[in-house]
Amino acid sequence: MVKVGILGVGTVGESVAKILIENSDIIEARAGRKIVPMLGAVRDLSKKRAVDIALTDNPEDIINNPDIDIVVELMGGVEEPYRLVKKALSNGKAVVTANKALLAYHRYELQEIAGDTPLFYEASVAGGIPIIGALRNGLSANHIESIKGIMNGTCNYMLTKMIKEGVAYDDVLKEAQELGYAEADPTFDVGGFDAAHKLLILGSLAYGIDAKPEDIIIEGIDNITQTDVEFASEFGYEIKLLGIAKKMGDGVEMRVHATLIPQDSMIAKVDGVMNAVSVYGDRVGETLFYGAGAGGDATASAVIADIIEIVRGNSSPMLGYKKSLESGLKLLNKDEIVTQYYIKLKVQDKSGVLASVASTLGEYGISIESMLQKPSKKEGKVRLLFTTHKCEEKRMKEAIKALENLDTVESDITMIRIEK
Amino acid sequence: MVKVGILGVGTVGESVAKILIENSDIIEARAGRKIVPMLGAVRDLSKKRAVDIALTDNPEDIINNPDIDIVVELMGGVEEPYRLVKKALSNGKAVVTANKALLAYHRYELQEIAGDTPLFYEASVAGGIPIIGALRNGLSANHIESIKGIMNGTCNYMLTKMIKEGVAYDDVLKEAQELGYAEADPTFDVGGFDAAHKLLILGSLAYGIDAKPEDIIIEGIDNITQTDVEFASEFGYEIKLLGIAKKMGDGVEMRVHATLIPQDSMIAKVDGVMNAVSVYGDRVGETLFYGAGAGGDATASAVIADIIEIVRGNSSPMLGYKKSLESGLKLLNKDEIVTQYYIKLKVQDKSGVLASVASTLGEYGISIESMLQKPSKKEGKVRLLFTTHKCEEKRMKEAIKALENLDTVESDITMIRIEK
Repeated sequence: MVKVGILGVGTVGESVAKILIENSDIIEARAGRKIVPMLGAVRDLSKKRAVDIALTDNPEDIINNPDIDIVVELMGGVEEPYRLVKKALSNGKAVVTANKALLAYHRYELQEIAGDTPLFYEASVAGGIPIIGALRNGLSANHIESIKGIMNGTCNYMLTKMIKEGVAYDDVLKEAQELGYAEADPTFDVGGFDAAHKLLILGSLAYGIDAKPEDIIIEGIDNITQTDVEFASEFGYEIKLLGIAKKMGDGVEMRVHATLIPQDSMIAKVDGVMNAVSVYGDRVGETLFYGAGAGGDATASAVIADIIEIVRGNSSPMLGYKKSLESGLKLLNKDEIVTQYYIKLKVQDKSGVLASVASTLGEYGISIESMLQKPSKKEGKVRLLFTTHKCEEKRMKEAIKALENLDTVESDITMIRIEK
Repeated sequence: MVKVGILGVGTVGESVAKILIENSDIIEARAGRKIVPMLGAVRDLSKKRAVDIALTDNPEDIINNPDIDIVVELMGGVEEPYRLVKKALSNGKAVVTANKALLAYHRYELQEIAGDTPLFYEASVAGGIPIIGALRNGLSANHIESIKGIMNGTCNYMLTKMIKEGVAYDDVLKEAQELGYAEADPTFDVGGFDAAHKLLILGSLAYGIDAKPEDIIIEGIDNITQTDVEFASEFGYEIKLLGIAKKMGDGVEMRVHATLIPQDSMIAKVDGVMNAVSVYGDRVGETLFYGAGAGGDATASAVIADIIEIVRGNSSPMLGYKKSLESGLKLLNKDEIVTQYYIKLKVQDKSGVLASVASTLGEYGISIESMLQKPSKKEGKVRLLFTTHKCEEKRMKEAIKALENLDTVESDITMIRIEK
């Protein structure tokens, strides 16, 4: 019998204990041994739990317990779980965590400390979708050319509502908050930080890149308006919040931002709270993995899959590569990324304005792919919408600054990156 | 250094050798050891190969070679590879196979013979998509409620052309043959047999069902016409060749047939030669795995993923369950499946005909969900199209027989199952 201790018995922790009990038949058949939830650590012992598991308010009771084989960390936060996971590992206990923030900051130290002790984290990215397993095992013969993921269900729910039902950003945010999809302070989701933590984990598996959140472009969906949604559609695009990791020679781009993607791509068809990760391998071509990215049971499904792998005695290199064999790729600076752009700007409705905008872009070596001019609601103004050919982010930023300095251009220029 | 022998150096075998050489950097980093293709067995030594590998025309040179650690079986056929794989296993060599026919017939005997020696087969189902890994590992905490897969790229290519471009069946078959997607004798693909072999493998992983092709419903796309495609669309459906495995109480339905599926489901959006498998787990909900189902490099990607797992020392129960712990579910008879149906029939255009058709269906306890009447090209005839609520296959077959016996009904009744 394998005994599991759970640090943090909230929604996911309850599901882990419940599924270990309710699906014990299939879990034992697949793992070859019985697996039982033995003890959970919680902050408030008096709170009623939806599952029958012994509780303690001292996490040390779990990580120092000689009877416990596997520690599941579902606490949230970074430093306290980091301390406890390190201690559990040094006590020789296998660890399963769903904590993406912990891994976004400390995955390389944890890999070092874990050594040959399993430290698994399938649930940390895209909930129930076995994307870590796919990158670590299923696609391991490939150089990964790119990863593009819808990894935040809150943002995808909001964008879907904006696109399909024409709801305004503020209204859909309020609705998402009422449904419990978004927090009272939604910044972590709508600002792209949650997706960024997940992307950093995938970037390690695919490229061996040791980056922190502050090293990569992180933007959210909070500047997307109905106008952008409508014009995107006229250009044949959907808007999604994507986490993108992509190889460019010896460099790797990593970035999270609202992105225009062709309407007919598979990932554009992923609606509502669902997640999906598209992975291009140099040999396999495009693969896509779709499913529930959050929720207690879906996340617990991934946690327990890891537990079963540990019980089977399986282990793969925690971050995809054997420790001594890093990939040698390096993270590109935020300004070095190269992509196509959508630009929206409001200009005065007089002759020569379009020419001056186009020539400004030209000065920075940016060539226009398509253009649309629409009357603005305000009299005497028009909206110009461009999509550009590929150019370096640095040039695009300089060009936008230059455009904003033109007398005829209003100051609010929207830029959304395009991914084909 | 790990040495690999390849039985069958055709398209996939060449790709395996080529990728082991060309991607040796990433493969060594991920596996922790160098992996080299050492020897290939072929029928015709004089034929030029696209890769530099030593060749023999005697497969025994590989399976009895003490220097070879892993045998890759890519021969095709059933009995000869069965003999060789058994011998390789009893020589203590790990085996990787992409041979779905071999597994469709002999997977349980092979599991028995393999014992603790790894016998992996990721490439046997849906080519480069790591669906075996997903079922064996990633979703292992779940009771699987259903599997619905587009697992034959030839059929999906043909149906996509029929649906999107209105091409007739015979023309699109000819085109598929010219492009090399379909064989001169296309029966194995368009008759559903290839998909059935794959479904049987997934059925073992999900349900522990030991079935052979003759035990399950296998139909193809060869009776699908443009009329069906058009009317399906009017009812809000796409037509796909699906392999379906589904739990119903203690029974499991397994079947391969052209299927009407709602246009807005993710799997309906999978076009062209691409494959996808949708898996519903009782905890994770729907997951979907998408990618290239065929082609040398994509299939080799899966073969090499298995090789890397073996080199890492990983092994999971070959068919998902520990040998002594089968699932206890049993395969339902072909007549016991329960689903919704689409029925197309041509009738004489006179009063009372619709009533007699409806009352015949009623006699067999079949209730109509929706109905469409269209004039036929032939004068004095009309086309009736129904979709029904759920009923047992047995009743539906009897009802169709009874309908065909009505004087006013022409004999060609088309029945297509619906899956929601």
